[in-house]
Parts: sequence; C-alpha cells; structure tokens
Amino acid sequence: MERPRHQGMAKNTYMRWRLPLVCLLWEVAMIVLFGVFVRFDSEADAHWEEEKREKNLTSDIENDFYFRYPSFQDVHVMIFVGFGFLMMFLKRYGFGAVGFNFLLAAFGIQWALLMQGWFHSFKSGKILIGVENLINADFCVGSVCIAFGAILGKTSPIQLLVMTLFQVTLFAVNEYILLNLLHVKDAGGSMTIHTFGAYFGLMVTRILYRPNLEQSKDKQGSVYHSDLFAMIGTLYLWMYWPSFNSAISEHGDAQHRAAINTYCSLAACVLSTMAFSSMLQKKGKLDMVHIQNATLAGGVAVGTSAEMMLTPYGSLIVGFICGIVSTVGYVYLTPFLESRLHIQDTCGIHNLHAMPGLIGGIVGAITAAAATEDVYGKEGFIKAFDFTGTYQTRTPSVQGGFQAAGIVVSLLIALAGGALVGAILKLPVWGDAAAENCFEDAIYWEVPEDEESDAYHMHNPDKASSP
Amino acid sequence: MERPRHQGMAKNTYMRWRLPLVCLLWEVAMIVLFGVFVRFDSEADAHWEEEKREKNLTSDIENDFYFRYPSFQDVHVMIFVGFGFLMMFLKRYGFGAVGFNFLLAAFGIQWALLMQGWFHSFKSGKILIGVENLINADFCVGSVCIAFGAILGKTSPIQLLVMTLFQVTLFAVNEYILLNLLHVKDAGGSMTIHTFGAYFGLMVTRILYRPNLEQSKDKQGSVYHSDLFAMIGTLYLWMYWPSFNSAISEHGDAQHRAAINTYCSLAACVLSTMAFSSMLQKKGKLDMVHIQNATLAGGVAVGTSAEMMLTPYGSLIVGFICGIVSTVGYVYLTPFLESRLHIQDTCGIHNLHAMPGLIGGIVGAITAAAATEDVYGKEGFIKAFDFTGTYQTRTPSVQGGFQAAGIVVSLLIALAGGALVGAILKLPVWGDAAAENCFEDAIYWEVPEDEESDAYHMHNPDKASSP
Amino acid sequence: MERPRHQGMAKNTYMRWRLPLVCLLWEVAMIVLFGVFVRFDSEADAHWEEEKREKNLTSDIENDFYFRYPSFQDVHVMIFVGFGFLMMFLKRYGFGAVGFNFLLAAFGIQWALLMQGWFHSFKSGKILIGVENLINADFCVGSVCIAFGAILGKTSPIQLLVMTLFQVTLFAVNEYILLNLLHVKDAGGSMTIHTFGAYFGLMVTRILYRPNLEQSKDKQGSVYHSDLFAMIGTLYLWMYWPSFNSAISEHGDAQHRAAINTYCSLAACVLSTMAFSSMLQKKGKLDMVHIQNATLAGGVAVGTSAEMMLTPYGSLIVGFICGIVSTVGYVYLTPFLESRLHIQDTCGIHNLHAMPGLIGGIVGAITAAAATEDVYGKEGFIKAFDFTGTYQTRTPSVQGGFQAAGIVVSLLIALAGGALVGAILKLPVWGDAAAENCFEDAIYWEVPEDEESDAYHMHNPDKASSP
Repeated sequence: MERPRHQGMAKNTYMRWRLPLVCLLWEVAMIVLFGVFVRFDSEADAHWEEEKREKNLTSDIENDFYFRYPSFQDVHVMIFVGFGFLMMFLKRYGFGAVGFNFLLAAFGIQWALLMQGWFHSFKSGKILIGVENLINADFCVGSVCIAFGAILGKTSPIQLLVMTLFQVTLFAVNEYILLNLLHVKDAGGSMTIHTFGAYFGLMVTRILYRPNLEQSKDKQGSVYHSDLFAMIGTLYLWMYWPSFNSAISEHGDAQHRAAINTYCSLAACVLSTMAFSSMLQKKGKLDMVHIQNATLAGGVAVGTSAEMMLTPYGSLIVGFICGIVSTVGYVYLTPFLESRLHIQDTCGIHNLHAMPGLIGGIVGAITAAAATEDVYGKEGFIKAFDFTGTYQTRTPSVQGGFQAAGIVVSLLIALAGGALVGAILKLPVWGDAAAENCFEDAIYWEVPEDEESDAYHMHNPDKASSP
Repeated sequence: MERPRHQGMAKNTYMRWRLPLVCLLWEVAMIVLFGVFVRFDSEADAHWEEEKREKNLTSDIENDFYFRYPSFQDVHVMIFVGFGFLMMFLKRYGFGAVGFNFLLAAFGIQWALLMQGWFHSFKSGKILIGVENLINADFCVGSVCIAFGAILGKTSPIQLLVMTLFQVTLFAVNEYILLNLLHVKDAGGSMTIHTFGAYFGLMVTRILYRPNLEQSKDKQGSVYHSDLFAMIGTLYLWMYWPSFNSAISEHGDAQHRAAINTYCSLAACVLSTMAFSSMLQKKGKLDMVHIQNATLAGGVAVGTSAEMMLTPYGSLIVGFICGIVSTVGYVYLTPFLESRLHIQDTCGIHNLHAMPGLIGGIVGAITAAAATEDVYGKEGFIKAFDFTGTYQTRTPSVQGGFQAAGIVVSLLIALAGGALVGAILKLPVWGDAAAENCFEDAIYWEVPEDEESDAYHMHNPDKASSP
Repeated sequence: MERPRHQGMAKNTYMRWRLPLVCLLWEVAMIVLFGVFVRFDSEADAHWEEEKREKNLTSDIENDFYFRYPSFQDVHVMIFVGFGFLMMFLKRYGFGAVGFNFLLAAFGIQWALLMQGWFHSFKSGKILIGVENLINADFCVGSVCIAFGAILGKTSPIQLLVMTLFQVTLFAVNEYILLNLLHVKDAGGSMTIHTFGAYFGLMVTRILYRPNLEQSKDKQGSVYHSDLFAMIGTLYLWMYWPSFNSAISEHGDAQHRAAINTYCSLAACVLSTMAFSSMLQKKGKLDMVHIQNATLAGGVAVGTSAEMMLTPYGSLIVGFICGIVSTVGYVYLTPFLESRLHIQDTCGIHNLHAMPGLIGGIVGAITAAAATEDVYGKEGFIKAFDFTGTYQTRTPSVQGGFQAAGIVVSLLIALAGGALVGAILKLPVWGDAAAENCFEDAIYWEVPEDEESDAYHMHNPDKASSP
C-alpha cells in the first residue's frame, strides 16, 4: 500500500506535525475566545424561569428551542451527511470527502459562532447564543462546504482549515453588510451562502489552477458504489432543503410558507433535470452527475424568496428553470470553464450553487419589489420585510433595489476574498499533493487493503483477477 | 460498456426524445394548473397575522406547522430514502431504484397536491395548501412507490410516469370515497395507501407478465453491498413509521397514541420475522430479504388503528402476527404467485404491503367496532371518530362496518385501476427493455466503468491476494 | 459458498430451532406482560380531552409529544442506524452488525418499557407509557448496543438476546438506584448508559475471552466500502447527539442548554481527534478508526452535565480532552487490554464509552458541586437539580458527592453484572461460532454470491459465471 511520495513532481504531503499543530492551536484559541465571550442567551440560561415570569410566558413551549430545533437538526444533517456524502462520488476519495468535510465543518461552526456572534448577538461584552446561532453557524459553514466542492481532491486538510478560517470571517462580514447595512432579506441564503460560497470557491480553484491535472484523470470519475453513496448526500440535501430555507424565518406563517415554496421548487427541478439530462446525451441515457446535483438547484434558487409570497406556482417556475440551467451548465459550461478559464471545478459548484444562487438573488429582488399590502396584508407586509424603525418608510421597489445590491456585494466580496485566500493557499507550505496524486485518499489517510483481494476472493483464493 | 440493443427480442429503449418530452410537458402542465388553482392556506399566508387576531391565538406556536412539520420531514425521508434505498437490493439496479423512485415521487407529489386539493382543500375556486397537504401528497406517492416495487427493473421511466399519473388520480378518488363518503378513519393508510397501492401494483405486473424473465435471472439477486444499501431503506422506514402513522392524526393525544402503537407493533414484528426467517430455512440461517421487508409489516398493519385505542399490547399482537404472515409469504407465496398466477413481484409487495394492508384494514374495523365511551371518554370518543354533524348518531359497530366496506372499495378500485393502467403500459410505445435486459441500469443510465477494473486494481495490478 | 461447519474446533452454530424458539417465546411473554401491565399515560389516552379541561390547558401543543417527539426520533435513529452502521466497519460482518443490532434493540425496547415502567411509571397496578418512556427505552437499549460493540462478531444472536434480557434488567436497577435513591442527575446517561454499558460489555468480553481469535484476524479489519458505511453511523450519532443529551431534560431552557453544550463539545472533539490521529502515526496519516469513534467521545462526556450550566467553553474543554483520551486509547490501550488483560474489544468501546463515560460522570459531579444560585438564578437552581421535597436542603457539594457515588455504583453493578452474564453466555448451548469463523456473516446469514464474480464481471461474458 505504501505509495512513493518523492517521485516526479512530488511534494511533501507529510502531515504529522503540521496538521496536529494547526488543529490543536486553533482549538485552544477557540476555547480561550469562547471562555472570554460566549454565554447562553436568555432562553438557554437557567435564569429563564425569571425571564418567563417577566415576559408573562405561560408555557415552556414558547422557548425558541421548540420553534427551531427540528429545523436545526435537518440543517445539521445537510451540512455533515448531505455535503459529505454528495462529494463521495469520486472512486477513491470517499474518506477525504466525508472526513475533511467533517473536519472543516467542525472547526468552522465554532469560529462562525464567534464571528457571527460579534456582529449579531453581542450584548454587554458577551456573545449570547441559542439555537438560532447554531443554525446560522451551520449555514455559514455550508458556504465553506460549497467552496470545498470546487477544490475537492486537490488540497490538503491544512489548506482546508486555512480556507475555512478566512471564508467564515468574510462570510460574517458580507452577511453583516447585507442583513444589517442593506437590510436585505435572505433567510435561505441564496446570496450570503450560495452566491458567496460558490464564487469564493471558484476563485480559489482558479488561483490554484493545476495545469497537469489530467495526470490524475483516471481517479476523477465515479464507480458504481460511489455514485450510490453520493445519492445519500443528494437525497438528504433535497429532502431537508425546506427546513434549510425556513429554519431562521420569522415564527409562524413565514416558516410555514418557506417550507412549502421550497418543496414545490425542488419537485419541479427534478423533472426538468431528468428531461435535460436525457436530452443532452446522444444515447439519451440519464447521467448520475446531473441527478446528484442539478436536482438541488431549485432549493438554492428560492433561498431568498421562499419566505416571501412567492406562491407555489412561482416556486415551480423557478425550480423548473434552474433544473435546466444547472444541467446545461454541467454539460457545456464546466468543460468550457476548465479549458478556457482554467477553473477546475471538481463538483461543478458553478452549476449547482453559483448560477442558481444568482438566480435566487434576482428572484428575491423581484419578489420583494413586487410585494403589495394587498398580497401580504397590512401587518404581514411589515412583518415580512421588517419595515419598522429606520426602515419604516422603505417601499417594495426600494427593497428590491437593495436586494439587487446585495447580490453585487456578495459577488464582489466572494471574488476578492477568493483571490486573496487562493493566493495564501498557493504558498508551498501547506502540504498539498502533486497533480498525479490528486483525488486519492491514500495520500492523507490510512487506507485498508483492497476489497477485491481479501474480501470478495476470500472464498476462491485461486481466482484469476482481471484488470 | 456499450451493450447491444438490437439482438434477440430487442426493444427500442432509446429515451432521448420521449422522456424529456413527457417530463417537460407534464411539468409545464403542473405550472399552469398550480398557477390557476394553488394558493397558500391561511396558516402559510402572510395574512395569518390578521387571522391570529380574529381567532384569538396568543402564540405563533399554534400554527399547524409546529404540530406536523417534524412528522412531515420523517415521512419525506421514508418516501425518498426509505423506498428508494429499500429497492436498491438488486445488484445492478441501484441507479434505477433510487433514481426512478426520485423521478416518479417528485412528479407524483405535484399531481397529488392538485388531485387531493380538488377533493379536500378546495375553497372558492382555489386549492389552499399547508403542511398537511404536503404530508398527504407524500402519502399518496407512497402508494405509487409501493406499486413500483412490483414492477421494479422491468419498466421504463416513461411507464413509471404514466403509472404515477393514473395511480395518483385513482388514489385520490378512492381516498375521497373512503374518507368523505364512507367517513372511514385511516390516518396511516392501511387501506388507502398499502392495500390500494399493493393490489394496484400487483395487477399492473400481472398484466405486464413477461414469460421470458428468467433470461435476466442472474441480475435479479442481490450482492453483499446492495443488501447493505437496502438496509438503509429498511431502517429509515422502520424508525420513522411512527411518524407516518401519526402525521395527520388529530392534534394531541391521537398523534401521541399513534406513535406509541406503531413503535410497539414494529418492535414485535422484528422478533417474529427473525424467528420465521430462520425457521423456514433448512440451514436455519437468516435471510436478508425477510429482514429488509417483513420487519416493516407491523407498521403497515396498524396504519388504520394506530390512532385508536388499540393499546400497546394490541399493537404487539398485530405486529407479531404480521411478521409471521409476511415472512411466510416471502418463502411460499411469492414463488406460487409467480409460477401459478404469473404475478412477477420483484420486491414482494404482496407480503409487505398487500396482506399486512388487508390485516390493517380488518384490525381497524374491529378496533372501531369495539370502541366504547368508557375506553375513550365521552369527548374522546366523539373526537376520535369524528362522530359530529351528519355522523352524530353513528355507532361503533356501524363504523366498523363502514371500515370493512372501505377495504373492499380500496381493493376493487385497485384491481380495476391496475388492470386498466397495466393495459395502457402494455402499449409498445413506452420504451421498456427486453426480458434479457431487465434489472440492468445500463439500459437507461450512463454507468461508470466497473469498479474492479480501475479502482481496486489501480495501484498494484500485479498484486497477489494477501492473507 | 457453503462453508465447512465441523472442522477443527468446530461448534454447532445451527440456529434453526433455538433462535426461533427464543424469539417466539420471549415475544409471547412480552405480549402477556404488556397485556397485564402496559397502558397509555394520560397524554396519549383518549381521555386527555377531559384532562386538558381539568388542568386548564388551552392548547393541544402542551402535550408532551410536541416537546419530545422530534428528539425521540433522533434518538431512535442513533440506536438503529447510528450503532448499526457504526459497527459495519468489519469487511464481512455487515449483516451481523446491522441485523443483530436491529434484533436485540427491538427486543430490548419492549423489555425496557416494562422494567423501567415498573420502577418509574407504575400507577395503580399499571405501567402508563408516553413518549418519554419510548426515549428511555431507547436509551436503555443504547447501553446494550454499546456492550454489543465489545463482543461484535464473536457471539450468536441467541447470546445477544440473553445478554439483552439481563443487561436491560440490571440497567433498570442501576438507573433506579441512581435517579431515585441517590437523586442523581444524568439526563444524557454518562453514567447510566455509557459507563454502565461499556464496563458491562468489557467484563462480558473478558469472560468470553477467545485465546485463538487470531485465526480470524484477516476478517477483523475493514475494507474501503465498509469504512464508508461505518461513517454513516458515526455521522448520525454525532449529529443527533445534541438530541440524545437533551431528550429527557426538563422542558424549556434545560433542553435548549443541553443541545448547545453537546453541539460545542462534539465540535471540539473532532479537532483534537484529527490532531492526535495524525500525530500518533509514524506516517502522519489519519486513521478511519479514530475518526469513526473518537469524534463521538465529546458527546458521551457531557452526558451528565450538558443540561447544567456547563457553559459553551466548558463544553469545548471537555470535548477537546475526550477526543485526545479516546484517540490515545485506540492507539495504546486497546492493544494493551487485549494482550495483557485478555479483553478483546472489537469496536474499542473502552475508548469511546468507558473512559469518556467516567469523565462524563466526573464532569457532572464537579459541575453540580460548583453550582450556585447566582449562576442558575434562585428558581432555576431548584429546578435544575430538583431540590424539592425530601431534597429541599441538599447543597451543591452534597449533590456533587452523590453524583460521584453514582459513578461508583454504575461501575460496580456493571462489572458484577457483566461477570455474571458473561458466565451464563459461556455455557456451550448458545451456538456461538468457532474462533476461525468469527467476524463472518456466512455463519448465521444467507450471504449472496460474491460481487466480483457476477456483478463487476458481468460485461465480460466469457468469464465463468456461477448461477
């Protein structure tokens, strides 16, 4: 099993001291920062009994935990199983896909609790956290998982941790600009999560362009079983996406509506994906890459508007279009981006997150601009867009304008941030593998003996093996 | 990889124009119909703020979303992962099992929202949908997934879409007759979902009888890994079945009770399945087919009665019996049905859904007939069976009679509908495969290179097998 | 495929009459006992309508079902998919891992409902059950799944059922001593579930020591795919652990806090596990065994204290330390225990459950001893530790002492019980396999043909294929 590490363009991928050092130092930093800053918010603190009396709450069920915890768990599954297994399609990178995703997400959620906490939950010197913070931390890390998709198989775990550190930071800044300064609505993160995460990742992979990547081309495909594992990821993302888009919406009708819109959009997306997957192939057969990815574009694309009065048929239209756009992207755009723009996008995040994310931002802007008191009701209108305080006089069309500005800001920060972080990751100290060793678990993982040699042939030791 | 398509009894399985056309046309039809008919119900609409005031609701938690959304998500997982992976047991039909299930369910839920909406949620010209409609749409599609189990591996995706269209329509009609005309209780769908879905599917596969199916017999079994994938499906169905049977029960004690009864029934079912699986085998070994399927019969069989006062020990008895019936069915009935009645039932839905569904209907009728005000309490009695309005004077024994009538109606509509739809699917225009190409993904899917040839041997082509 | 059963140290593993007999007799016993004892509690009974009026409950949402059912479902997934798949890492024991786990858990939850019911929910001659009983039954069975991990691959299904019967009984006794007599807090079960289950299992495997186990050493490892299946188990345990530790906490802030603390602890644990996995390996590569197991130690170790005011940074510290302890245990302690103490611990439960469980008990004792009215608030303090009635005057330091006593009691009952049950399981009547047949599904399961021979080579028709 031992593989030569120092032949050809060999690089030093030895992790023994570097990876432990980074992990331990950063975790100690988290502990110190949590010790200084992080406390429970009032609904998770044992003082809540008093708070309940003061607020005249008659039942424990009024605790935000019961409004959001089921959705939180669904989102949690999406981040760790959804993204982790979706990226397992590569024939020899299953450990890396699920394991590195696990590592970066576990670090990322801690750093996100701090970064987002400083911006949004900072009160008298402390960050006060509750279940909504956990959801937002998972969301933030979702954008890192997306970017990971572009560089899957080509980076070391240290590079991924470094990227996570910077990307979470920039995510929080971008999110603050959008939600607090522009007063934009984006509960399902079409802009903050998908557009930002995808263009950030695409820029990073552009900077890390590997001219000789065809040397590991034989490992860049799937095998039968790896495609089945990937379908676990796809389905959990698909099924739980209604929870994703509704998890942090306002209590009541907004959460309810966000789930329904997302359900509809995703259903339509499956049909247009299947149609175009078959249509764009000479033999007319379905391609697992499309089914695994493009079927999810409908969830991305209603991320901003799902909690608005998009209506079920509006959702169907958005999902329908995005299934087409995404599938066409896989067939025509991904090869083009690689050959012409030198963007090597392992999972095709441009098709699943970047384009649908942009569409999602635009659909959100239009839906906001088209809002009327007639459709939302007088109170519902104010509640839906939070037109209170400073924003009391904002009109739907102005809101639409700010929503559009949010897309542009997300795009710019993603591209600039991706370029910066890509440059940092290009430094030759992070232990990434040579081109011929990409997409190969054996570089960073202890890999067990080949199945074929001991498991399947166990009973017939004299069977000839064929290449 | 290219397989000959035109040898022997070859058929034209070329999907390039037919499948996209059907998908796109039908999705456009969905968009138009949703545009005309579907709107949010009052709890998902932004006007809910006003509604709350009118109804004197003091908290957002009173929104039906918080009563049903967690159960909805569990049901959603059962339909897409549960059924999709359960059918993955075939060695070379994993893509088809999970992928076609995905396709037909995604289409089916849209059509079910419309069909069920016209019957049950139609107000002043609009279908008003909320989370309960989503659950019911998933339920309806569940009956299609069941029928899919009978014809798994033998039909084209277009046939499945055609079957879905008709089956969802008939499901809604049957459901309307049972729930509205006969005023039958069937919250977990022993009759409407399982009996109907299974006999429908059995009739379809009878009509589509393939005399030469033994030509693909080598592909009709499982391999080690495909059995493990199938266990994912089994376990998610098993674990979430309490949510399935309680998802649309009345708020409060009925949902609570339905979950407990189902939990008990399923636990007992596992033990009797294991016992008979070992007992009916000369070598006394356990058979994965039974573990994957018969362990679930207990959930099917309390589908009608779980929300009633079946009691935990009643549930144990029902589960215990159904584990036996189902396992015996796999051993003796399935071969009999195939050889004598020409019913080729790939997944054995007769054992998992048809017989337990009938038992479930009967148990429901008995439990209803045995109900007393003593056991339910005066108010609980009326609430449990909705003996209000027109049904104010209905007695338990009359209710039991109507429940029994519900079984017969479901059975008749299923058989007649299955015969009709089977005849339609027999038309030679849908692109199904020849007998020797059944149970084979490569007909409709791009299948990656064999694992063995490139993945496992990749590193040491000359490796002798070790230890 | 037929394997010789009677060569060498062959044992009689024929299950045909023994396994069915045990399953059927025990299930009939369950039915009888449930018939005599088990009824719905007031919140699951149809009389709840009256109860609601009496208690002045204005909404159905006050039913405990809505406080706990989502957590219950997460716990249910952990027991059946989490443990079942985690143990699937062995190359040829996937059926046994998931199938026997299924069998023992399905039996165990029924017996646990009775045993725990007699101790905790017994009112006027009946055991009254609701959703909290289901969670507790799952918890109890969790401790059996842990013990199963130590003897995985070396025991017959009958032995597992016998062990389950005794272990559930002892679990309920131990739990009663801790919760009722010592008035100890242990909502996430660091002591009652993990410490008890692990030392019980370690003692059982010590008594069942097999000196010739190296005869099946070639089957005691993983293959690439089996490691990926195991990651499904790992991730579901990891993601849903916040639900596990909060499932039976008091309504409101306690559930909320328990989820947050567990989330934090688990995140930190991943980083220290990754660090030490790489650091303790000469080649610096990550080891899947550690990632699959040690990443979970953080959840075990806050099982007692998660619902207390441990604070997020306290949780990070606990998780951080336990990731290290657990990983070091896998590298150094497991080989030591096997060679010196003759403890053959297939899954390494000593590292994942025993040590972290002890740490969890200690952390709980310290956190309780350190509690102040200042930190908890006057009412919160009383509510958190239930310092009411007889315990009105108990101080935090006294509580800490009782917590510590709880660890000792759990340890002693586990060791004594494990020795007793181990001795029973050593009787030569239970049909366990010979040493050379351990870790091999084909002993107790019908195993399909090897994949390699029919699936992967399908496209080379000139290869000899066997029907």
